[in-house]
Amino acid sequence: MTAALSTDQLAERHAATLDAALDALRTRAYWSPHPEHPKAYGENGTLDAAAGQAAFEALRERRFELDQPGTDGWTGSEVSPYGPRLGIEYPHADVAVLLPAMRAAMRPWREAGPRTRALVCLEILKRINARTHEMAHAVMHTSGQAFTMAFQAGGPHAQDRGLEAVAYACAAQSEVERTAEWVKPQGKREPLTMAKEFTAAPRGIALVIGCNTFPTWNGYPGLFASLATGNPVLVKPHPRAVLPLALTVRTAREVLRETGFSPDLVALAAERDGEGLAKTLAVHPDVRIIDYTGSTAFGDWLEANARQARVHTEKAGVNTVVVDSTADYRGMLSNLAFSLSLYSGQMCTTPQNLLIPRGGIATDAGHKTYDEVVSDLAESVRQLLSDDTRANALLGALVNDQVKERLDAASRIGEVALASRAVTHPDFPDATVRTPVVVKLDGSKPDAEAAYFSECFGPVSFAVAVDSTADAVDLLRRTIREKGAMTVSAYTTSAEVEHLVEQVCLDESAQLSLNLTGGVYVNQTAAFSDYHGTSGNPAANASLCDPAFVTTRFTTVEVRRHP
Amino acid sequence: MTAALSTDQLAERHAATLDAALDALRTRAYWSPHPEHPKAYGENGTLDAAAGQAAFEALRERRFELDQPGTDGWTGSEVSPYGPRLGIEYPHADVAVLLPAMRAAMRPWREAGPRTRALVCLEILKRINARTHEMAHAVMHTSGQAFTMAFQAGGPHAQDRGLEAVAYACAAQSEVERTAEWVKPQGKREPLTMAKEFTAAPRGIALVIGCNTFPTWNGYPGLFASLATGNPVLVKPHPRAVLPLALTVRTAREVLRETGFSPDLVALAAERDGEGLAKTLAVHPDVRIIDYTGSTAFGDWLEANARQARVHTEKAGVNTVVVDSTADYRGMLSNLAFSLSLYSGQMCTTPQNLLIPRGGIATDAGHKTYDEVVSDLAESVRQLLSDDTRANALLGALVNDQVKERLDAASRIGEVALASRAVTHPDFPDATVRTPVVVKLDGSKPDAEAAYFSECFGPVSFAVAVDSTADAVDLLRRTIREKGAMTVSAYTTSAEVEHLVEQVCLDESAQLSLNLTGGVYVNQTAAFSDYHGTSGNPAANASLCDPAFVTTRFTTVEVRRHP
Repeated sequence: MTAALSTDQLAERHAATLDAALDALRTRAYWSPHPEHPKAYGENGTLDAAAGQAAFEALRERRFELDQPGTDGWTGSEVSPYGPRLGIEYPHADVAVLLPAMRAAMRPWREAGPRTRALVCLEILKRINARTHEMAHAVMHTSGQAFTMAFQAGGPHAQDRGLEAVAYACAAQSEVERTAEWVKPQGKREPLTMAKEFTAAPRGIALVIGCNTFPTWNGYPGLFASLATGNPVLVKPHPRAVLPLALTVRTAREVLRETGFSPDLVALAAERDGEGLAKTLAVHPDVRIIDYTGSTAFGDWLEANARQARVHTEKAGVNTVVVDSTADYRGMLSNLAFSLSLYSGQMCTTPQNLLIPRGGIATDAGHKTYDEVVSDLAESVRQLLSDDTRANALLGALVNDQVKERLDAASRIGEVALASRAVTHPDFPDATVRTPVVVKLDGSKPDAEAAYFSECFGPVSFAVAVDSTADAVDLLRRTIREKGAMTVSAYTTSAEVEHLVEQVCLDESAQLSLNLTGGVYVNQTAAFSDYHGTSGNPAANASLCDPAFVTTRFTTVEVRRHP
Repeated sequence: MTAALSTDQLAERHAATLDAALDALRTRAYWSPHPEHPKAYGENGTLDAAAGQAAFEALRERRFELDQPGTDGWTGSEVSPYGPRLGIEYPHADVAVLLPAMRAAMRPWREAGPRTRALVCLEILKRINARTHEMAHAVMHTSGQAFTMAFQAGGPHAQDRGLEAVAYACAAQSEVERTAEWVKPQGKREPLTMAKEFTAAPRGIALVIGCNTFPTWNGYPGLFASLATGNPVLVKPHPRAVLPLALTVRTAREVLRETGFSPDLVALAAERDGEGLAKTLAVHPDVRIIDYTGSTAFGDWLEANARQARVHTEKAGVNTVVVDSTADYRGMLSNLAFSLSLYSGQMCTTPQNLLIPRGGIATDAGHKTYDEVVSDLAESVRQLLSDDTRANALLGALVNDQVKERLDAASRIGEVALASRAVTHPDFPDATVRTPVVVKLDGSKPDAEAAYFSECFGPVSFAVAVDSTADAVDLLRRTIREKGAMTVSAYTTSAEVEHLVEQVCLDESAQLSLNLTGGVYVNQTAAFSDYHGTSGNPAANASLCDPAFVTTRFTTVEVRRHP
């Protein structure tokens, strides 16, 4: 097959970026090849804001063509959380035709080797990056994220996580791909000699089960880790967030074709209403790898039932902030206010339980009682979101009715320290935009535990009064161990408390941010430096990205013979 | 705590060995620090043959003391496959006491860091190595292996696999353990700066479920991989092969104590008759890692039910030899004869199905019909085992009655090309020693498939007549895919056939040996160079040792703060 884009050309374009990515994994210093400012786009073949919006609008009210094998109809019913229906239909796959086509595409992809696969993945990411403005609208109108967040988290930050996975995959496989001469002495006799070849071999078809809130950010690590390790990838998007992954699949297929590989190495499996396609695909014997982000119930089901596959899950957790003391009271309050407000708390990393000693805390602004801390935090959130334009830009829209129902129910759980407020969106009057609610709970009351000891996904936080910091640390441990946590945060000026919290996080495997008072928020992680999840507590059995995230996706096959 | 053996002393003793092991993993050239000849032992504090035997005899007919917490009685009923009962009783553990003690031992072990943990593991292995002559008897009289094999496979080769796991663990964790300064530019504003620390954190208690046939060789990789990654290890031996692992646990506890760590990082869980302890422990919430070698039924049960743990299994497979053609007919026959005879075929790596075209094969000794190949192989085995002394030294004893029952039943499955012969052991008249049986089957007959398409563990091989080499390759593919395989072997002078078999092994993830005609056998793998299993077919979900074998055992915990 002649390739429009040769391996040499790919290396010329991307080798330096790949090497920089491999280096960043080791140093874990700040690095990204993907600009995060919308104005950085518009030159060198990238779409500017207007072209991106036009491209998105041109997708609406029509069929999204993908020339994949085995299309047996069309499906799609996405409605933007901002109101408008998208009106896009996607090919529905006959998996009895599609899966064999994907398997048939594997061998040349395996034979290409880890570095060529990585370079092809980098070309895919580069083309996705060039259309970030289009993707931003696609993510905004499926997840409900505000535009800037949809642009950054759905664009460059997701692309960073994809590239990180490619780099990890390339490094892990490169350690394996080699030949060896093995010579074992036999005393006075001739030594035994063997020539050995070691190849990184893929497992089989990888299934990515997308989520509604972060279709690209949570989808790319698994997608690119599996593809870069030689596996075909079937993408089953959330039915309300198909478009961002459909665009991704289309770009991947285009690049695969141009580089001389079968486009069927990446395919879309959009589902019909109520089809339950994820369940069917997850237990298919040809599916050998699964990446999933979503509910604990379905994640647990996958882990228990998809026995033929390696299953990577990110499920629900309960994120805690231990508030012991601070040397920057205002900084703490404004940092927390931002964390609670961003995307209306619809992030798996948003803090939920703020554990505050009922005796109050020491701060640079003097001693603050529990009530003062809570009301000051409430005021901080109120001020942050007082302007509707700014509120809309931070909050985005509620992604679905269940989030709104949980928000409404939260006010009845305890004393409301900060009531939720409905915000009107100037461009999208049908959008449900809400500020977060903060509810006061007494940690010593058993009925309060029912509320704070489970995930309440959305703009709901609990200010839990605890007996002491030691009590908070105990509750933190129990929460991580039993419920899991994607993030832990703590504020303290005490080296001893810092040490205690660190020990809990090391004992129970949770990622810890200490004394965040500036422009870094506990709910955000940066690829190449921060890990997202640990894989060691019930919130997720995978970490983005650690070596285990890629080493599960390929095997090492040895062929040995006498030389 | 003062340590009798300091980290500096450990480094002085073992740093060079550890570095050599890390280097061997990369080059995959021949390397071992553990001499495999029995006569190499007896100096430098190692036991010689007489001292080893005496040490073994001194263990018999008494209690095996282990000062672990929570002993609630004594248990043990080992009887040597060679006849004598061992008469040893082991402490029975009250896991409600033992498991908390093991968890309590974790923190200092985690804080010691990857390299110190590796050095402590190397000290354990060195002391185990020094008592190899004692271990050889322990392995012989629990597994039924002949002495030389028990010495080598149960001693230096098992120690090599343990050391390999330590080296992999050290390398994988060392990549993680670091600090980083992260500086993100913010245009004209001050950059965002974070100080980050990354720690390799253990998952929790690791359970090793031992097997009867290779208690140390199959037990050490998981034991040492888990310990070196910071996890306490609870060893649940097979009730008929407790002693080799009890000796191992005792040595580990001794070294841990001397190096200033808690001995409770390694403990034994010997079980009472019919207690089903493995099932209870496997689903205990504190058990987070499991390593298992044994039946497919229990391996599948573990994978399905021990949801709180990372489960590494080696189960049953069906190993195939494709016989297409050879340039060394005598070499092929003698190599196969040895492979079929070694330890009476009681190895998960022993070839079972020899696929031979019914039209015969081309060889350097002229064309050979299917019948000639089979009868020549039978004659080769017969000659190899004609002398009883040599037969006893190669075959060892049948490990249990089930193996003998399968052997007896095999003669009724098809035409017997080579009948099994009972061999008398001069020292152990009660030992059941049997030469292998070779049964002819017609691969085109559906009733034959019932026999060759499932594992028949023990000294039973099927010479399966197939229509052609292409037919053999198809059957090979189907066998690996549906039944799994620990090994694949092929004999061919055709580059095309070689390529076809290689492709099948790469497609279906199986380890391949080509044209073995000398002193390397398909059932043997060498640590640091050969992989045992791939983790990619139904025979095993783990490979000894690849990066995935260790990366599943720890998590990376990050603590970030402003500097």
